[in-house]
Formats: sequence, C-alpha cells, structure tokens
Amino acid sequence: MQQHELVRELTEKNQTKIVLLVADGLGGLPMQSGGRTELETASTPNLDRLAALGTSGSSIPVLPGITPGSGPGHLGLFGYDPLEFKIGRGALEATGIGFELGPDDIAIRGNFCTLDSSGLIVDRRAGRIPSEESCRVVERLQGVRIEGVETFVKPVKEHRFVVVFRGKGLSGAVADTDPQAIGVAPLEAVALTPAAQHTAAVTQSFVRQARAILADEQKANGLVLRGFAAKPQLPSYQDLYGLRAAAIAVYPMYKGLARLVGMTLVGNAHTLDEQIDTLAHCWNDYDFFFLHFKYTDSTGEDGDFPGKVKRIEELDRALPRIEKLGPDVLIVTGDHSTPSRLKNHSWHPVPTLLFSSTCRPDGLNKFSERECLRGGLGIFQAKHLMLLAMAHALRFGKYGA
Amino acid sequence: MQQHELVRELTEKNQTKIVLLVADGLGGLPMQSGGRTELETASTPNLDRLAALGTSGSSIPVLPGITPGSGPGHLGLFGYDPLEFKIGRGALEATGIGFELGPDDIAIRGNFCTLDSSGLIVDRRAGRIPSEESCRVVERLQGVRIEGVETFVKPVKEHRFVVVFRGKGLSGAVADTDPQAIGVAPLEAVALTPAAQHTAAVTQSFVRQARAILADEQKANGLVLRGFAAKPQLPSYQDLYGLRAAAIAVYPMYKGLARLVGMTLVGNAHTLDEQIDTLAHCWNDYDFFFLHFKYTDSTGEDGDFPGKVKRIEELDRALPRIEKLGPDVLIVTGDHSTPSRLKNHSWHPVPTLLFSSTCRPDGLNKFSERECLRGGLGIFQAKHLMLLAMAHALRFGKYGA
Repeated sequence: MQQHELVRELTEKNQTKIVLLVADGLGGLPMQSGGRTELETASTPNLDRLAALGTSGSSIPVLPGITPGSGPGHLGLFGYDPLEFKIGRGALEATGIGFELGPDDIAIRGNFCTLDSSGLIVDRRAGRIPSEESCRVVERLQGVRIEGVETFVKPVKEHRFVVVFRGKGLSGAVADTDPQAIGVAPLEAVALTPAAQHTAAVTQSFVRQARAILADEQKANGLVLRGFAAKPQLPSYQDLYGLRAAAIAVYPMYKGLARLVGMTLVGNAHTLDEQIDTLAHCWNDYDFFFLHFKYTDSTGEDGDFPGKVKRIEELDRALPRIEKLGPDVLIVTGDHSTPSRLKNHSWHPVPTLLFSSTCRPDGLNKFSERECLRGGLGIFQAKHLMLLAMAHALRFGKYGA
Repeated sequence: MQQHELVRELTEKNQTKIVLLVADGLGGLPMQSGGRTELETASTPNLDRLAALGTSGSSIPVLPGITPGSGPGHLGLFGYDPLEFKIGRGALEATGIGFELGPDDIAIRGNFCTLDSSGLIVDRRAGRIPSEESCRVVERLQGVRIEGVETFVKPVKEHRFVVVFRGKGLSGAVADTDPQAIGVAPLEAVALTPAAQHTAAVTQSFVRQARAILADEQKANGLVLRGFAAKPQLPSYQDLYGLRAAAIAVYPMYKGLARLVGMTLVGNAHTLDEQIDTLAHCWNDYDFFFLHFKYTDSTGEDGDFPGKVKRIEELDRALPRIEKLGPDVLIVTGDHSTPSRLKNHSWHPVPTLLFSSTCRPDGLNKFSERECLRGGLGIFQAKHLMLLAMAHALRFGKYGA
C-alpha cells in the first residue's frame, strides 16, 4: 500500500498524544423526510464546542455507497485500506476473544445448531443457548483428536464458538459448512483450492468426532462452521507510525481488531467512565489511544432512535474528562453509520471531528451530519484519517525536499 | 477493475426501481462574470423540491479538468472507469445505429467527401449531402467484395456512414485515413501494429473499390475513414449489478452506449413525454431505467443560453410524471457539462441529485451548480454514482464482517 510506504518514510517521534474516540455507527438518518438525525437531535454542548474550535468532515468508510462491517470499518480508521487488507471472519472472531493467532493457525467461526433425527437443521442457533451452557458443551469438544493438528475450541457468546486448527500446511480456502437455512443438513467441508484438501479433511474429521460427542445434547447436538481464515498480515502501529498504541474497548470484536494492528489491550472497563479511568491510568505509557464506544451502534441496530440520541449525549458528557488529559489530537468519529431508521450499518458518510492546537478552524459551531459536510476535512476516505492524526500531532516530516 | 469485483460480491436482488435521468451536458457557466448558469437561471420548482428532500453533489466525469466525449461521459455514469474502459469511435457509431457488433468485427466511421480531379479533398463532408442521398450512395457500396471478409456499409446521417469488416484476425490498430484537412488526398490505411497489416490491406482494397464505384458521383465521390475499433469488452448490467436495465433514448449514440453495457432498448420515443410514456409502459419489466435527454447538450453546443434554460425547464416539468411511478431511487445528472458560453463539452463538475427514502438530506433547497457544491454527495467521481444508486436501493450487502 503506497500510503504505508509514505507513512514509514515520514514518521517522526515526539511526545504528543493522540486519542481516537470511535462512536460505533455514529452517523444516522432522520426517521421522517425533513427530520433530524440522531446526532442532530441530541444535545451535544461539548461536541459543538469542539467543532467550533476544531475542524470537521465526513468520512467515507470504504467507497461511496459501500456499507462496511466492523472489520473493514475499523481498518479504514486505523489507516489500512479496507479493500486491500481483509480479515476473515474466523480470524476476527478468534482475535476478539483474546486468542492470539499464530502463523500456522486457521480460525473458524462455529455455531451450535439443533439437528432433528434425520440430521437436518431445525434451529440454526440451538435456541440461542446461554453462554454458560455453551461453555459446558465446548468443554466436551476438547476431547476431539486429529493426527498432526492441534485443535482449540473456545466459547464466544451464546451459540457461537471458535475453532482453531494449528498445524503445517493448513489453508483458509475451505467453504462454509453452514447452509444458512433450516430443513437441510450441514454441508460437507469442501476445499476451494487443491492446497486446502488437507484442511477440508481435518475439518471433516473434527465435525465427525464432534457430532458423536454431542449426540446426546438436547439443543446443541450439531454444529456449522464458517469463515475459515488465517491470521491477516497487517503491519503494526509501532512499525508503521512509531506509536505505542493502547486499545480501550469493552467488546471482544474491537479488542480483536486493535490487537491485529499491534495495539496493546489495556484495562478491563465495562462502561465509558471506566474506559476513561483506564485512559487516565495509562496516559503516560502510550502515544495513541483507541477508545471504542459500542452503544451508538447497538441502539441504531435496534432501531431505537431515542436510545441512540441518549447514547450520543452520554458520549458528549464524557468528553471533558478526556480533554482534561490534554491530548494533542482528539478525534471523534465512527467506523460507519448505523441509522436507527435502517436498523443496520449503512454507507452514509460518518461525521468526524478533529480537535488540535494545530488544526485550522472551519467556522462550524455544531457537530452534525449536515454541518460536517461543510467542514474543513471535507468528504474524505477513512483510510486518510490517520494521516491527519499524525500530521496534527506533528509526527510527520516533510515529503520531498 | 476493483470496483466491479466489489459490486459482484455485494450485489443482492430486491424489488426496488432505479431511474437514472441523464440530462446531457447539464452543467453550465454564466455568460458573464458574476452571472448565473443556465441551470441557475431556469425556473426549476420540481428539481428544487427534490433537492430539499434528497442529497446533491457534483460529479466529475473522468478527472478534474478532463472533458469527456459522450462515450466516456456515459461509461462513468454507468459505473465503468472511463480511463480503463474505452470505446473506439467506430464501435460507438456502429452500435448507435443498431448494428450489433460481433467478436470478429472491426467498425469504422466513414465520411463521404468531395475530391477534385487530382484526388484532393475539396469538401470534407461532401456538402453535407442529405441522408436520403447518402443512403443511395451507401447502397452502391454494397457491391464491394473482399476475399475472406464480410463487409457491411450502413448509412448514419448526412455524409456519415459506418463500415464493418467481419473476419478472422482483424484488428482495430489502423490509422485514420481522414487527413482532417482540405487540399490534400485521403491518407493510405496504415497498420499501427504488425498484427494489423491484414486489416490495413483489407481497408485499402475497400477504399480502392469504393472509389471506382463512386467516381461518377457529383458530391460523394470520395471517402475518408476513422476510428477503427473492435467491440469493447464491457461486463453487462445484468452480470455486474443483477439489474434488468432498460434504456429509453432518442438518439442512436446513447442507444448504442446503453446496448454496449447490456441494457435493453425500449420503445421508440421521439420526445421526453413519449420517453416517459415508455417508462410507464415498461415499469414492471425492468429494475433500472436510463433516460437520456439530449437537448440540454445540443442547445449548449449551439451557444443558445436561453434555449438551454428552456430545455432545463422542460426537463423539470417532466419530473412529477416520473415521480408518480414511485422510483426507489431517482437520480438526475449529466454525462458532462456543456456551457453555452463555450459551445462545447467541458470539464466542469456536473450538478447531480439523488432522491430516495434512504438518502440523508443535506439542507439544500435548490438544485444548481453552486448549491451542489455544498451537497451531501460532495464532489465525487462519476464512476461511483452507480455504487450510490445501488446502496440507496438497498441492493448491496455489507462489505466484510
């Protein structure tokens, strides 16, 4: 990636601190034509004050019209072109639960499902069995043995788990066994390339043994697998930007994403307040801080417009505590939009705010989707945001003589 | 093209309808410094109303500063990078008159010209002979015979015609025989690559026989050829976007362009009203509708500022009939600007409006070049417009997990 060559060439070190506050799914839509978005509805005195002092813009996560998942959405914000760097679902899931993938690993996302007496799927999520029950069932699968391959099975949440095969010559080019339908049997594991035939056979052996072990389970008597993936090759934050980077996230997915780019997971916060406690606590140990706030996305996905408004206001109230630490660059953005109206991630540009003593004010005095269109950062690609962060932190030298 | 891989990966089918209304050469310029453009002068209550409900932007057809012909202008709007996908003039002309090019064809644009007794060109357009006379002359050329090559000669309009050579091993790499000057003889057909020597010889044979046949013509006693081209390889709308696409155009050029990307030519309209009749008539049979309105370009090319204003107002009046059909996404744009002041295509960004229940309003309340600069689509590349159309029609899945 040309951008990374440039970053490596220009990066300089200094004592500045950068905070990237990601409000997941921040951007929204009005519920009715002519109305206001969630952000435009929320009372956000702190964001508005920072917008007046800082510079704003609209971030396009991937390309115009393209709706990203959390993986590509965050990779863009972290400065990795999400069309070039791809993370397989299995790798993302494994990393998210704190499983550190090695070079010989293939990670797979598993779902427990309920099979009828003919082996056909009657419930693709095994009745969403509670996590505790899932842990018990996963424990039983530790008994699987495959010649020449080390097998890890780890619970994630409810019916979801992760399988990792570790061994020489494994490949991620295996088709999902999840038919994504009920009334049919799970699919065979099929190699998508000749080199993946060994992995497909390993998978078949795993599934056969697992089925035998789970046969007496009421709900979780079957399993489907998808997203076979090796660990993605991503240059680290230290390597690229020379930044000691800390990630302060609550949910496994975002911890996993941060770990993949070499950030250190810090603290064990469960609320935004605790996240900021952690931030304050580790302030002297790192140069870059990724704070992830999940609830602007989850309320949006629930279609809960007033709930999202409240979460935005909660985020706004947290800002003074972050400002008090004196970051040299403070960025507030999202990895994508999640309009309550669509109950889903969307392609709409994400309102973004950059506050720094080195930024050029753009005359705005409110932080909103509409205002950001007129901001000094313009409508920009998310993958360029880290260039702006580094620049405003005076961590880039001049390009060319 | 990476964009096409992405489109293929993400495309989903649903029942939504997309209308792309292309007002050819829509963008303009003020006639005097400090004045208004044609669009800013026109009374456009419907476009202004849609601008208030929708989201606007400025489309860059190719790159900043690059003025496109109709081919690249439309390819961009259709989602094909006009710097990557190229249509030779001959191929465009042939397709435009309804000639369906095959894989073994080379198409060439021909002009009848008038030669003096020494064989020098005295009129490059043979006095712009009427189309009927041109048809008669073209008919005489059906007598040309070339060993191993099937030859088609078809009239276009006035002095213009198309030649198609069909045979194995033909190539488009032959230089124009049109010297684009008077007082000189037509050029020899010269191969630009070794592989094109056969085609150059075929062309020489064609020209020799044609000259003999036309020797007794008063005006059209000579001919020049240009734009030797094979059919371009463009993935179809069906293949790329999963869209059943209809083209409702009046002029051959735009029909041809639409056909090259696999759109079905529908109806035989001659006026905008008839085009909308056709649209209503075939509404249930297609998912995507390309409507082409020529007169914003032709008035611009004539330098007829008031005429272009009137044509824009005619377009505006037609909008409610289109809206009444209930398109899920309605886009109004142009393939390029054609300012009356320049009497020509230009590079200036094209005002663009997207109206959909899923769009994010941007606070504009007028549709004009000036306002579009502040719109939610920003200043964008034309090749991304189809991504936005598909996204707003909810025809794209999520990119990545």
